[in-house]
Amino acid sequence: MKKYNWAILGCGKIAGKFSSDLKLLKNANLYAAASRSLERAKSFAEEHGYEKAYGSYLELVQDPDVDVVYIATPHSHHMEHSILCLDHKKAVLCEKALALNAKEVEAMIESSRKNKTFLMEAFWTIFQPKFKKVLELASDPELGQLKFVKSDFMFNPEVDPDKRLYNIELGAGSLLDIGIYPIFRSLVLLGKPTAIKTMPRLLNSGVEESIFMLFDYENGSMAALTSSFA
Amino acid sequence: MKKYNWAILGCGKIAGKFSSDLKLLKNANLYAAASRSLERAKSFAEEHGYEKAYGSYLELVQDPDVDVVYIATPHSHHMEHSILCLDHKKAVLCEKALALNAKEVEAMIESSRKNKTFLMEAFWTIFQPKFKKVLELASDPELGQLKFVKSDFMFNPEVDPDKRLYNIELGAGSLLDIGIYPIFRSLVLLGKPTAIKTMPRLLNSGVEESIFMLFDYENGSMAALTSSFA
Repeated sequence: MKKYNWAILGCGKIAGKFSSDLKLLKNANLYAAASRSLERAKSFAEEHGYEKAYGSYLELVQDPDVDVVYIATPHSHHMEHSILCLDHKKAVLCEKALALNAKEVEAMIESSRKNKTFLMEAFWTIFQPKFKKVLELASDPELGQLKFVKSDFMFNPEVDPDKRLYNIELGAGSLLDIGIYPIFRSLVLLGKPTAIKTMPRLLNSGVEESIFMLFDYENGSMAALTSSFA
Repeated sequence: MKKYNWAILGCGKIAGKFSSDLKLLKNANLYAAASRSLERAKSFAEEHGYEKAYGSYLELVQDPDVDVVYIATPHSHHMEHSILCLDHKKAVLCEKALALNAKEVEAMIESSRKNKTFLMEAFWTIFQPKFKKVLELASDPELGQLKFVKSDFMFNPEVDPDKRLYNIELGAGSLLDIGIYPIFRSLVLLGKPTAIKTMPRLLNSGVEESIFMLFDYENGSMAALTSSFA
């Protein structure tokens, strides 16, 4: 079995969780970790069992032995870091949300096509056995048309204006962090909506703390989706 | 203890359920039932133990012994029947929804004031011990601000274009029949919203089968409400 050399770009909390799971794959070799701080990369590599540690992302992608890079930096940097990897012919698994907006995502897809290099959003829901079962049930003609999708994702994180979830410079807000899960469910189950209405709740900082979303579908189906840090 | 003579105006299914509960009140006398059909009124009066039966609503309100009338006709007739009772100085408990729109409700309130006669919407949720407990919790300052109200009411009635729920002439639609419960909860818990967005699902007949509602509040609270027959 061919073993792939995995690298981690960005050594935060989710990168740690991802590494624990990566160890379960027989064809994955935990090869390198990179952070803007070499010290942080070394400590992460040691904790999770990576062979190498880099103090810059450029060094990481210049290592010819890296096969796949998992991007674990904040949303605000997903485009830049994914394209850096793709331009160095590294396959990319980018943490969700893939980027801040459609324009950035299009640039990433363009880079993937140009470089003929693998790009994927790490959207795990689709692989959950429970969700697969839901899809199976939803497509059973005997159960009739799926009329509603109701999906909520809320949690109550610590309010820290410097951290990712509340720092607008790092792609803050509930929508990009957790709102994409309910949206994803609706997209997969019902397709692309014909009309959308939303009601966001913005903090004084401009950060979107909560958002309520209504999706309307031509065939008569509807979706009511929410996400919130409140 | 003074006993009040109760009358039922409209002898449908809910009127029957209401009568069963009315029997539990020590100060209530099940006095008269009226329907457009004398036969129906007689059969209802016999089944539920009312002393008298009337084949017209006018006869009912002209009976000087009637103290209180419970209006159990479709929404489309609540205004007409309530005002008929109020004009004959009968206290009115009108089944929800009180009427089809604010204009009708205003006319009813005006009639109640003019006649100095009691008018009340039969909105029972407020009297539920569980809901009282919710109100108590919601107003506990130690629990902080109530940020969200999420409330749904959905059921799947038989689709019959002649019957109340699907007949636009009789005030059809999920909003008036069940949507008012989630709305009520939001109004009582959070007050009057500063902005509302809705997404109704209309059938070809023009009947509103489902409606999703988002309420926004100045103080940062929000409500996501749904009702549906789908």
